[in-house]
Amino acid sequence: MVNRPALIFINEVSPRDGFQIEPLFIPTADKIEYINALSKANLAKIEVTSFVSPKAIPALADAAQVIQGIQRHPNVQYSALVPNVKGLERALQANVDEINFVLSATESHSQANLRQSRAQSLEQLRQILQLAGSVSLNVSISTLFGCPFEGLVAIEAAQEMVQKVVDTGARRIALCDTTGMANPEQVRQLASWAVQQWPDIQWTVHFHDTRGMGLANAYSAYLAGIRHFDASLGGLGGCPYAPGASGNVCTEDLVHMFEAMGLNTGVNLAKLLTIAKTLPSLIGRPISGHVAKSGPVGQQAAAAKLN
Amino acid sequence: MVNRPALIFINEVSPRDGFQIEPLFIPTADKIEYINALSKANLAKIEVTSFVSPKAIPALADAAQVIQGIQRHPNVQYSALVPNVKGLERALQANVDEINFVLSATESHSQANLRQSRAQSLEQLRQILQLAGSVSLNVSISTLFGCPFEGLVAIEAAQEMVQKVVDTGARRIALCDTTGMANPEQVRQLASWAVQQWPDIQWTVHFHDTRGMGLANAYSAYLAGIRHFDASLGGLGGCPYAPGASGNVCTEDLVHMFEAMGLNTGVNLAKLLTIAKTLPSLIGRPISGHVAKSGPVGQQAAAAKLN
Repeated sequence: MVNRPALIFINEVSPRDGFQIEPLFIPTADKIEYINALSKANLAKIEVTSFVSPKAIPALADAAQVIQGIQRHPNVQYSALVPNVKGLERALQANVDEINFVLSATESHSQANLRQSRAQSLEQLRQILQLAGSVSLNVSISTLFGCPFEGLVAIEAAQEMVQKVVDTGARRIALCDTTGMANPEQVRQLASWAVQQWPDIQWTVHFHDTRGMGLANAYSAYLAGIRHFDASLGGLGGCPYAPGASGNVCTEDLVHMFEAMGLNTGVNLAKLLTIAKTLPSLIGRPISGHVAKSGPVGQQAAAAKLN
Repeated sequence: MVNRPALIFINEVSPRDGFQIEPLFIPTADKIEYINALSKANLAKIEVTSFVSPKAIPALADAAQVIQGIQRHPNVQYSALVPNVKGLERALQANVDEINFVLSATESHSQANLRQSRAQSLEQLRQILQLAGSVSLNVSISTLFGCPFEGLVAIEAAQEMVQKVVDTGARRIALCDTTGMANPEQVRQLASWAVQQWPDIQWTVHFHDTRGMGLANAYSAYLAGIRHFDASLGGLGGCPYAPGASGNVCTEDLVHMFEAMGLNTGVNLAKLLTIAKTLPSLIGRPISGHVAKSGPVGQQAAAAKLN
């Protein structure tokens, strides 16, 4: 399995999307140790931190130290979120492999989360694309399926936003369901449209499991031709400015599903599950997710035989 | 939405598949009140109890009293599980709308759960089909995707078992993933084969969410043409003889997903969520499931606007 080329690419976002909302500050050394362990599980990409203002998100105030401290694995891309030009400069200094720029698909969420209009975000994106030079840039479009303030996003409005982002020249785009409002039919519509319109863009999907549809949406996106998936170990994460949001789709459950389907993710699931078991002591609370409790399908049968 | 014909049929199994493994005996009057509430939520079918030996499953020793005590809603079918001819006689006396006969797809599970071989179960099924007369009979094939003792079930072995059940003359068949081992690709293969081979058989799928794939499997089954779904409110249920098994796919999450996709289940989701909130006091522990905590997609937006 290890020798087959990976067909599915997993971007582990827990060090950024997860840790940013944890009420306890996770010590820098623990973050580094955690990311180093993730690197050994052979994930395609790890979003290691966010170059936001330490005042806005104190949990990630140590962004530069974290990136400097980790051991980079040659097979893994290391990504960092940047909200603006200042963040970009810090990220470029830290020599990340990819910049992740986030903007919102809905005006209310843009104002609440980013304190600027969508038009301002798009303008910022154009600037950042220029300044990033040869460093890869991914654009994450938040609330593209649903918005905690405006409700479900109509397919036409979602397509219009995607089109605007494509028009900036972005070549990596994540379709994000920030608060777990997407359903598989909606995902099918938007994802298959995007993949068909621009097959050369690297499309990623980013789901939350707020209403239990995370894996169903991931499966639907896979059927639509998506091959890149954001996920968070232990289902960590959420959005501090999105009322009612709960965790991201759980990495170990997502990897387990794809591997069970016979699709190679390249990820070492056993290592991933071992790291997941360290999370409760790291964040001081239990994690969500299923496979860490039940074990993978193969192991269950083996365990039952022993009983 | 209420006036459109239902496209998806939900069979609520919590009074049987859920209550049978609860350690606390749920008083008969409480069971009756619970089922009466479910009837008002307009589910297509409710599996109300099981006519098994009270020694084997004391939790359902009050099967006859429960069926006699409930108020039957004209739009709802009331089903009961029967393990053998003796159970069938009790179920027929109780005048149920449907008999649900369970057999195992794997020999080890058949011996562990039913204490007889698969061949004996098939022979029993033929007898029961004859004796049931004009009363509808559904056959639930357990461990059809995976077995806690034998591991994953190969597609050929699953198809062979389905063929044998079809050969008995059964016209309602449930493809059951008893311990949550199925994945969406496996579901697609088996379900689309079954639907294409015998389009006139009423096919149902029965999933557990042990590894988080319950809704993804349901979506896959829907794409394959399945329209009947077993589910359990609050994700109650499991299999007492299946090590590692956890709850059934959660009714409110399943209904919510299909309704979000624009598919009419006929079910009143608001009523269902109200009943789900009574479950923790009924069973003495918290329930699983997402939508009961997060609220449906529409309501979340409304709530956020109020904040």
